[in-house]
Amino acid sequence: MDEKSEISKKLLPIMDTMELLSGRWKIIIMTTLYLGGRMRFNEIKRSIPRITGRVLSKDLKFLEQHDIVSRTVKDTSPITVEYELTEYGRTLDPVFKELTHWGIKHRKKIIGLG
Amino acid sequence: MDEKSEISKKLLPIMDTMELLSGRWKIIIMTTLYLGGRMRFNEIKRSIPRITGRVLSKDLKFLEQHDIVSRTVKDTSPITVEYELTEYGRTLDPVFKELTHWGIKHRKKIIGLG
Repeated sequence: MDEKSEISKKLLPIMDTMELLSGRWKIIIMTTLYLGGRMRFNEIKRSIPRITGRVLSKDLKFLEQHDIVSRTVKDTSPITVEYELTEYGRTLDPVFKELTHWGIKHRKKIIGLG
Repeated sequence: MDEKSEISKKLLPIMDTMELLSGRWKIIIMTTLYLGGRMRFNEIKRSIPRITGRVLSKDLKFLEQHDIVSRTVKDTSPITVEYELTEYGRTLDPVFKELTHWGIKHRKKIIGLG
């Protein structure tokens, strides 16, 4: 197998991962739940600067369909809906940690290049 | 400071990082260079299934402008252009490793949900 197809083979897992996580807001929504634990829709929305309700609702639905986020409806009046990372979703914690760590270390450089 | 703004403050580094890395192909292009070292345009393109030349060219230019990838023109006939991660780009290696690791561990589940 030549070197290029060797690389392509090694790329497949990360391509699947990026298929799932692509889009600017999904990783940020997951990191918010990683930091905040169980949260309501408006709590998530207030925590993420510049995200719209439409995008948050769409991405939460996607993450729910992919078993990364769970949605619990509580029988209060009015009813309340809470979101949190599933056990499967929490397996991404190391990725959130690395991204946050990199962001903290390189903020000056990133903002300088902005 | 209430809990929401505490979370927002912690989100800022990862929001900057995702501002830089957003889009499905950038992380995949960087991982290709992480795996393949110094590579020519067509070598990168052949390694990444389904990427178009237009997207590859646009993202390589973005990554070059953000000092994550370097571009070297070699005085051959015809001239050859090679790309590789800069030292700054290599600081993202831990992120690539975590994403690849997560992808390998969860491939069956991701593909099953596809």
